[in-house]
Amino acid sequence: MKKLINDVADVVKDSLLGMEAAYSELVTVDHEHKVVYRGDAPVANKVGIISGGGSGHEPLHGGFVGHGMLDAACAGEVFTSPVPDQMLKATRLVNSGAGVLHIVKNYTGDVMNFEMAADLAAADGIRVEAVIIADDVAVQDSLYTAGRRGVGLTVLAEKLLGAAAEDGQDLDSLVKLAERINDSGRSMGMALSGCTVPAAGKPSFDLAEDEIEIGIGIHGEPGRAHVPLATAADIAEMLVRPILDDLSYRGSDTIVFVNGMGATPLIELLVVYNEVAKILAKAGVTIVRKLIGNYITSLDMAGCSLTMLKVDAEMVNLWDAPVHTPALRWGM
Amino acid sequence: MKKLINDVADVVKDSLLGMEAAYSELVTVDHEHKVVYRGDAPVANKVGIISGGGSGHEPLHGGFVGHGMLDAACAGEVFTSPVPDQMLKATRLVNSGAGVLHIVKNYTGDVMNFEMAADLAAADGIRVEAVIIADDVAVQDSLYTAGRRGVGLTVLAEKLLGAAAEDGQDLDSLVKLAERINDSGRSMGMALSGCTVPAAGKPSFDLAEDEIEIGIGIHGEPGRAHVPLATAADIAEMLVRPILDDLSYRGSDTIVFVNGMGATPLIELLVVYNEVAKILAKAGVTIVRKLIGNYITSLDMAGCSLTMLKVDAEMVNLWDAPVHTPALRWGM
Repeated sequence: MKKLINDVADVVKDSLLGMEAAYSELVTVDHEHKVVYRGDAPVANKVGIISGGGSGHEPLHGGFVGHGMLDAACAGEVFTSPVPDQMLKATRLVNSGAGVLHIVKNYTGDVMNFEMAADLAAADGIRVEAVIIADDVAVQDSLYTAGRRGVGLTVLAEKLLGAAAEDGQDLDSLVKLAERINDSGRSMGMALSGCTVPAAGKPSFDLAEDEIEIGIGIHGEPGRAHVPLATAADIAEMLVRPILDDLSYRGSDTIVFVNGMGATPLIELLVVYNEVAKILAKAGVTIVRKLIGNYITSLDMAGCSLTMLKVDAEMVNLWDAPVHTPALRWGM
Repeated sequence: MKKLINDVADVVKDSLLGMEAAYSELVTVDHEHKVVYRGDAPVANKVGIISGGGSGHEPLHGGFVGHGMLDAACAGEVFTSPVPDQMLKATRLVNSGAGVLHIVKNYTGDVMNFEMAADLAAADGIRVEAVIIADDVAVQDSLYTAGRRGVGLTVLAEKLLGAAAEDGQDLDSLVKLAERINDSGRSMGMALSGCTVPAAGKPSFDLAEDEIEIGIGIHGEPGRAHVPLATAADIAEMLVRPILDDLSYRGSDTIVFVNGMGATPLIELLVVYNEVAKILAKAGVTIVRKLIGNYITSLDMAGCSLTMLKVDAEMVNLWDAPVHTPALRWGM
């Protein structure tokens, strides 16, 4: 295993020190609880938005803390859910009295721990609602999940919900918006290679030199199938088709998100985006906004995922709204 | 070789189609000449800023075309200099009459071809000046270069010179600013793995599982030494020391740029940044701005580079000035 790390046990701690050293104008880090939060939290009269999950998916979630997106993010160990105590701490830190929204990727540990934190926060008198993101069409259940996994849509949800909260929407409206996002978003991923969890020291799985995995999860969980290595055009088809089979996007304005899994260079993501755009044009889907890059990763996995989200004018406005976080920034 | 591509011969063409499909609100692509240029070029009364080089370093250079940075970028084949005809076309496209600045990384082919293009443009009556970026302290000469290689400083130079041009500085001032940038910036890189040029089909070099290469170039050219795999703290030392030995940064305000080579995940770059920041604090260097991510890459090489640039108040203002390109965006 070759990684730019110190001790295997310190990877998350050291990366949070790096976050703090690099972005202290935006975020503060509670190292005891491994919570990254907005320096100006709690923001008066604003619903607090928090997320979190296992580390190894950077910039998700800590890289999305800042104006117009998250108020706080809880970092678990690599590919391991944070504990309720972290989520409770984050909830307290960002609560202005307007309530707190938990954005939770659908993994059993995350869902359970966020629920427990919400109960504890309620005992404190903090109103908490949760949205469970479950957008991965690849498999019905997986190693770590009952129901669909929460993957790329999480990034788009954090942007839209963060903008809506910044805009003054109350907790009830945010919950409704979250439901619309969940209803309108789907994802599908693929891998050229496995990823290596530092504590494991070897790849989560091996693929032959002429094989790829379609429908992979963001922890190297098995997908739909090993298939022979194919062209970018064919791989784009393998990502787009299951999404369009699951939900109709014809005639819809859509945000398209081509995400790198961590070890795939941008030149390849651009090639994939081009193929996706061609297929969607033929399928009558209008791409109104796009995001291309490494935003929800799986350590050093090579591969990519596609997320599509149908949007109305309000959602486009929320997408365009100013954001200033370590990993996503515009308008500020 | 596993890559998200179609035909090996079409990688650059397909990635430029992807650029155009994704970012048509910002850039236009001349596919015949493989030139990516600002949709609003030439900008009246503004010096045109162009750069270019071999592909495989994305988002450099095409990803930096837009308001506040480059007016055009020429894409060569992977790791191959563009030809003078491309640079001439780009120069013509962005010339408003205020002259054109060529930002050239110091590689023999690039320097020669940009010179030829400048001569041809001069015959057209276009005033062209060139700045040769040569910031890599690793080796004096290399496989493709007489003198120091041009690496990470190129990104910072494109940002600062682009902002200055947008601000109305004339060609003579830009040349002086470029000299200050070259005098004040240094870089050093390292690799955990080689990279695979699509047409070659296999890694440019092999490193043992317990070995890294210090002082690597952005094409997999040899560096200073193979050394045993080390901690991030030790690797940070191996990057910082040669820079500080070459130029004094003590007491200077500095922009620090920790760059991923393409296949290194952000969590590792954050760990490296933390170590770099600790060393620089002890060395009396003040980090006033930072950039962390994959901005000048080597295809699927794993590793990172460090660039340091001493800055004065004017350069900080230029850094902070609005920019809107596919890969770098703020304030807009």
